[in-house]
Amino acid sequence: MSYLRHVEACNRFDPDAFLPFLLGGSRIGFIRRDNAKALTPFPRVFELDDRAIRLAERLATPAERSAALAEVSSALVRGGAVAMLRGEAFAITETWQGPTLFELDRGAVPFFGTRSYGIHLNGYRRDGGRLMLWVGRRALDKKVAPGKLDNLVAGGIGAGFDARQTLIKEAAEEAGMTEALAGRARPVGAMMYRMALPDGMRNDVLFSYDLELPFDFAPRNTDGEISDFALMPLDECLRLVRETDDFKFNVNLILIDFAMRHGAIAPEQMDYLALASGLRGGLIREAGERPHLGG
Amino acid sequence: MSYLRHVEACNRFDPDAFLPFLLGGSRIGFIRRDNAKALTPFPRVFELDDRAIRLAERLATPAERSAALAEVSSALVRGGAVAMLRGEAFAITETWQGPTLFELDRGAVPFFGTRSYGIHLNGYRRDGGRLMLWVGRRALDKKVAPGKLDNLVAGGIGAGFDARQTLIKEAAEEAGMTEALAGRARPVGAMMYRMALPDGMRNDVLFSYDLELPFDFAPRNTDGEISDFALMPLDECLRLVRETDDFKFNVNLILIDFAMRHGAIAPEQMDYLALASGLRGGLIREAGERPHLGG
Repeated sequence: MSYLRHVEACNRFDPDAFLPFLLGGSRIGFIRRDNAKALTPFPRVFELDDRAIRLAERLATPAERSAALAEVSSALVRGGAVAMLRGEAFAITETWQGPTLFELDRGAVPFFGTRSYGIHLNGYRRDGGRLMLWVGRRALDKKVAPGKLDNLVAGGIGAGFDARQTLIKEAAEEAGMTEALAGRARPVGAMMYRMALPDGMRNDVLFSYDLELPFDFAPRNTDGEISDFALMPLDECLRLVRETDDFKFNVNLILIDFAMRHGAIAPEQMDYLALASGLRGGLIREAGERPHLGG
Repeated sequence: MSYLRHVEACNRFDPDAFLPFLLGGSRIGFIRRDNAKALTPFPRVFELDDRAIRLAERLATPAERSAALAEVSSALVRGGAVAMLRGEAFAITETWQGPTLFELDRGAVPFFGTRSYGIHLNGYRRDGGRLMLWVGRRALDKKVAPGKLDNLVAGGIGAGFDARQTLIKEAAEEAGMTEALAGRARPVGAMMYRMALPDGMRNDVLFSYDLELPFDFAPRNTDGEISDFALMPLDECLRLVRETDDFKFNVNLILIDFAMRHGAIAPEQMDYLALASGLRGGLIREAGERPHLGG
């Protein structure tokens, strides 16, 4: 069992099974070829051909695009192509920090394969020389990965929030953390991957944060999303990463990166370079391309 | 002035200007097309055609290959295609941790574009809340980047050494560090890039290490490669990275990565994702490919 299998699992997608989703000259997402027919009832919103799906140019403003896509998203739920809406808007941009092109319900994001952004917090402390991580267990009623182990805090960046605001908000909701404490977290990198799903694609960026927590801190969930917390030695977390699928699929990436940054996965590891590049999008393929990792 | 320009500069290379250098079915390097003619006098060592340069199959063992390439390297120096040999052997492998295929003089490595591996040490301390980095200035008689600013310790991984042994050896030579002190450094990642040079290509992996140093430590160079050291605030190092070329070209990458891991370059930075992937080989192009960074 290896670390690399998680990076590979998060990048399992065949670019040739998807059509680029375009706005003007920019690719803003990926739509499954076999999902394209679900969009033919909306000729005023999408221009479809064999090579791409374009958002109609007549939708000239973010507000018009958001309204049109809200209507389409509801119809996709009725038609079964999207499981359900989440009532939470994500801002769709061409690039990170770029202007909002439109907003889209989180539940419809995989269908359109637009990029979504999230934050993950490694909450840790040092017991003697030993690194200990706070680990949460996801509630059994979560839509994604129920019952799986998770970071102390994690969440998607919704429309109107930036990365740090999301961190502060989620740290309060998920772990009962004060803003003063959560504000001491430091950003330490970003993971990128594209992963095929039955209904589309996860096209994700996860911003990672580290926070060394005081000994008198114990997390307390307030939103029902985490059923309980445990303080686990990093070594035990890494054993679970290597040998099991106990952690939520993408949390494995955050933990591997944490271990690499803290010296617990070293260059002596055979897959070290493949991990280093794979965590930063090195396994993402474009149509017609073969992957090439720094081996 | 930006951080990203340094990542771009370290990845400035046109894959179509190079021929793959092959051993059996494996690509082990890149040779400039306009350098290929320098190898025609050695038909028993190389098989050349329009698409690749192959090391002759009759060279069946690492010892035979090393001997043949030593002879060729000397001839390349006499012919002017290689500036000089360095008297230091690098082990050539197909992948990191792979078996040694042959050894090659460090001075001939760019000609053949084989991958070389090095270590860089970020030696730092915290003065109050302020991160301070030990910075060296390279001696004026260094072949590469004389007089430029450098990490506290850096060096290539020679044949017979692993990453950690190289770190310990270079820390003693370049900064007068005891093994006990240098051994506390922790590995924190690896940078990858390919960069065209007048005589070939740098095809580099740099393993990065962090070491928090005690207040009573002051570096002392013993090998004449560093003329002097200074303790500089991280913020001032980053200003120099952004605004000047005072640091050796690839040291900029190590410092940008250090800043990202320590929260001094944050997701709010416009180029954050391009930096994150670009440091891990995201700008490396294969022949016929266009670069695509996580923007």
